[in-house]
Amino acid sequence: MTDFILDSRLEADTVPVGELILNRVLLMDDSRFPWVILVPKRANIREIIDLELRDRAMFYRETESVMEAMKRLFSPTKLNVAALGNVVPQLHMHVIARFDDDQAWPKPVWAVGEKVPYTPEAAKARAKQISIELGRL
Amino acid sequence: MTDFILDSRLEADTVPVGELILNRVLLMDDSRFPWVILVPKRANIREIIDLELRDRAMFYRETESVMEAMKRLFSPTKLNVAALGNVVPQLHMHVIARFDDDQAWPKPVWAVGEKVPYTPEAAKARAKQISIELGRL
Repeated sequence: MTDFILDSRLEADTVPVGELILNRVLLMDDSRFPWVILVPKRANIREIIDLELRDRAMFYRETESVMEAMKRLFSPTKLNVAALGNVVPQLHMHVIARFDDDQAWPKPVWAVGEKVPYTPEAAKARAKQISIELGRL
Repeated sequence: MTDFILDSRLEADTVPVGELILNRVLLMDDSRFPWVILVPKRANIREIIDLELRDRAMFYRETESVMEAMKRLFSPTKLNVAALGNVVPQLHMHVIARFDDDQAWPKPVWAVGEKVPYTPEAAKARAKQISIELGRL
């Protein structure tokens, strides 16, 4: 994990959820959607295929764990899973719980409107709720 | 693979690239972006975590093969990889080669403008080019 530094824009837009084996887990500070981001704690990785094979397996497994936790917690209409990185190239995976009555439905969340930050208390509470569901206090 | 039927909207929006072990591979008929879609040939799958574990491993491996092929062919600024499914819930993975001078950059492709279909000849040529790069004539 030498030299991993979280991109400053990801840090600014999120609150911490916790640490998995490979990934740092973050809550996007946008109360419109339950929205988690996983960032592999590896330096200089832009694409999934830049990860070593053993890291890829863990990257997928931990993404699936977040998907399962979001499914259990929020019972979404659909999960959205995406690694885009056009603005922040540091590899990060979005896992977003979507509902057929949410603000952007059925469009992707990036297409619509402005973010609505949580209150600091609500952000901490939601991050803790997700952390607990991930089995990691 | 019993009972797999490709969603009619995916079929209407794409041209065939070929068949991998798990996935049908399709070219999105939008000449603005090199844009491939993988669809696991399994019935009643909406989320990645609905796939059996052995299918998930193949789903990821074949997605990586498409990413590698797109990287070799197009040298994109960034690959975008996403399983959304808000409109078409049948599980399908987008792999899109993005360029810092493409029409939607840096936004996701779903956010911007209207698709620009290929000519039938250009669509076939591009699909064949990708198929060859995937090692599958």
